[in-house]
Amino acid sequence: MSGKFMDAEEIRRKAREAWRNNARCIGRSIWESLELLDARGAKSHEEVFEACLRHLEFSTNGGRIRSAITVFEPVARKERGIRIWNSQLIRYAGYRVRDGSILGDPEQAEFTARLMELGWEPPASRSRFDVLPLAIELPGKGVKLYEIPRQYVLEVPIRHPEFEWFEKLGLRWHALPAISDMAFVFDDCKFTAAPFSGYYMVTEIAVRNFGDENRYNMLPAVAEKLGLATNERGSFWKDRALVELCSAVMHSFKEAGVSMVDHHSAGQQFMKFVQKEEANGRSVPGDWTWLVPPMAGSSMDMYFRGYDKSRPEPAFKYQKPAW
Amino acid sequence: MSGKFMDAEEIRRKAREAWRNNARCIGRSIWESLELLDARGAKSHEEVFEACLRHLEFSTNGGRIRSAITVFEPVARKERGIRIWNSQLIRYAGYRVRDGSILGDPEQAEFTARLMELGWEPPASRSRFDVLPLAIELPGKGVKLYEIPRQYVLEVPIRHPEFEWFEKLGLRWHALPAISDMAFVFDDCKFTAAPFSGYYMVTEIAVRNFGDENRYNMLPAVAEKLGLATNERGSFWKDRALVELCSAVMHSFKEAGVSMVDHHSAGQQFMKFVQKEEANGRSVPGDWTWLVPPMAGSSMDMYFRGYDKSRPEPAFKYQKPAW
Ligand code: HEM
Ligand code: HEM
Repeated sequence: MSGKFMDAEEIRRKAREAWRNNARCIGRSIWESLELLDARGAKSHEEVFEACLRHLEFSTNGGRIRSAITVFEPVARKERGIRIWNSQLIRYAGYRVRDGSILGDPEQAEFTARLMELGWEPPASRSRFDVLPLAIELPGKGVKLYEIPRQYVLEVPIRHPEFEWFEKLGLRWHALPAISDMAFVFDDCKFTAAPFSGYYMVTEIAVRNFGDENRYNMLPAVAEKLGLATNERGSFWKDRALVELCSAVMHSFKEAGVSMVDHHSAGQQFMKFVQKEEANGRSVPGDWTWLVPPMAGSSMDMYFRGYDKSRPEPAFKYQKPAW
Repeated sequence: MSGKFMDAEEIRRKAREAWRNNARCIGRSIWESLELLDARGAKSHEEVFEACLRHLEFSTNGGRIRSAITVFEPVARKERGIRIWNSQLIRYAGYRVRDGSILGDPEQAEFTARLMELGWEPPASRSRFDVLPLAIELPGKGVKLYEIPRQYVLEVPIRHPEFEWFEKLGLRWHALPAISDMAFVFDDCKFTAAPFSGYYMVTEIAVRNFGDENRYNMLPAVAEKLGLATNERGSFWKDRALVELCSAVMHSFKEAGVSMVDHHSAGQQFMKFVQKEEANGRSVPGDWTWLVPPMAGSSMDMYFRGYDKSRPEPAFKYQKPAW
């Protein structure tokens, strides 16, 4: 049966299965809690945009994050359907500066340039944390840009529980990770726009977004403030800076009342999920290199086993960038 | 040509290639420095044992560790040859205590029990760091046990550069990691006994041997001494304990004048090795899950690429345990 006319209940079941099947997600223990927002009726750019705002509102939920997916009109496998160009509903701009460096999130630099080509005007005074507009494309009707009103973007300023200087680094991050460029597929049916979101695991922000050299690259600045010898072998300044970043991000989200899981708890919950799945006669598709957190991996049970290499459907799949 | 009569020079070349080919070793950048100790002439248990001592002496080199491999008489692929039963030349006993717990290294508990069955008598007062005897088997001539004289086992007591209490944890480790149960193979030739050794990467001892729950399981004790809340989510006590363990192990090895590499430097050296290999037209066999260190993985370039899945020979290969 085509997803176009399928019962919403049935689509929700498929979406939960797609989450349960995703080999890279450590957060799958609560797959049965996924809620469906049915926006298959959205026909215009505006209607799609409004459904995105509803998604942000419902899933953010003032900080007590609810896992959710919004589905737009699906197409057959080979067709081109509705596309949200952004990789996530909320992401920060990355501006190329004259000296070749980047202000903001380097991961978004190319996309930011593309949006400006299309006419997006960044705020008068650019910052490292300017939320990008949504780029929504309808098949045959082109792309339109929409600014997300401030009240839909819950953000958390990052402070450290002990170090006062930390706040002066001026770091902040958005509460909701909402992937918006993957397709949700099963049978002959493909939802080319199906943004989904849960809550963050602390390392995603602290270790990767802030720590990676080709993202905000904060380890040298944090280590310097900590008074660590960044030129000395075996001073473990990167390791120490990573721990303090985790500590700060976790603390700030807690204080702000925004849902977040630390990697150790996530690892434990994941192992319970594996046990439950296996008790139910299902093996767990998994990609070790993504599942094991980028920090203290071997302190978790999940480090010590392998995972099923099969990639069953329903599934979330990469698509060619739409831009 | 059979390895039995092959030129030592030629065997050394093959051994260097076997190292270069090993998908799991992050230390391959210096593969050309591997030295060969030729003990193909060792015919009796005693002679094999003495060659093992020479290996320890040569490779340990008072702390300035030299990478080396000792080869004993090889056999054809399907034959059973000389076997050193120990997984490494130097390992600590693990004694099963009445309450079911283990004194020493749990990884060696089964093997320790087997050695005692064969007549090994542990020291009168057992400790967590009793060096196991070598169990040497010649085909058709059975197994014999040999105590390694103290002077061949360089050890490093573990202290922390800042925390005085750390020394009271009573940790120590041996300077030389010398794998002794893998086969070295090429063509139709198999060296069933071919112990090899380099120097340690800090995480092997600090993170895995001391940190793993099923090894010395020191994270709770270290965290407690650090005054961390081990019952609190998001206190990152395991992450902090791991950093201090690294710090202590690295510091102690340095102070003792024993070669050791930290995981960040090892990662950099490995990436240079990859570039050099690729510049020489060779792709690099690699196993991401082993190559990426168990800590701060994403802070290293090696996290962000894949490796060749081929497993060429010459190679080091697992063998069925001989005991
Ligand atoms: C509820 C809390 C959740 C947590 C803590 C969580 C955690 C994670 C983490 C840490 C990753 C790896 C991200 C990276 O390294 O870039 C991931 C990937 C993923 N998660 Fe989850 N997740 C959650 C909810 C969800 C939901 C609701 C869905 C979909 C219904 C989902 C689907 C996925 C998918 C498809 C990926 C792979 C993305 C890719 O391949 O790029 N997750 N998750
Ligand atoms: C010189 C310094 C060296 C360093 C820093 C180094 C580092 C490492 C590390 C960290 C591992 C992973 C160990 C584990 O997680 O259990 C490893 C594995 C390995 N290394 Fe090296 N290594 C060195 C020398 C050598 C030498 C001289 C050889 C052989 C000639 C060698 C062959 C191997 C092999 C075969 C493995 C895989 C062991 C297995 O599969 O269990 N390495 N090395």
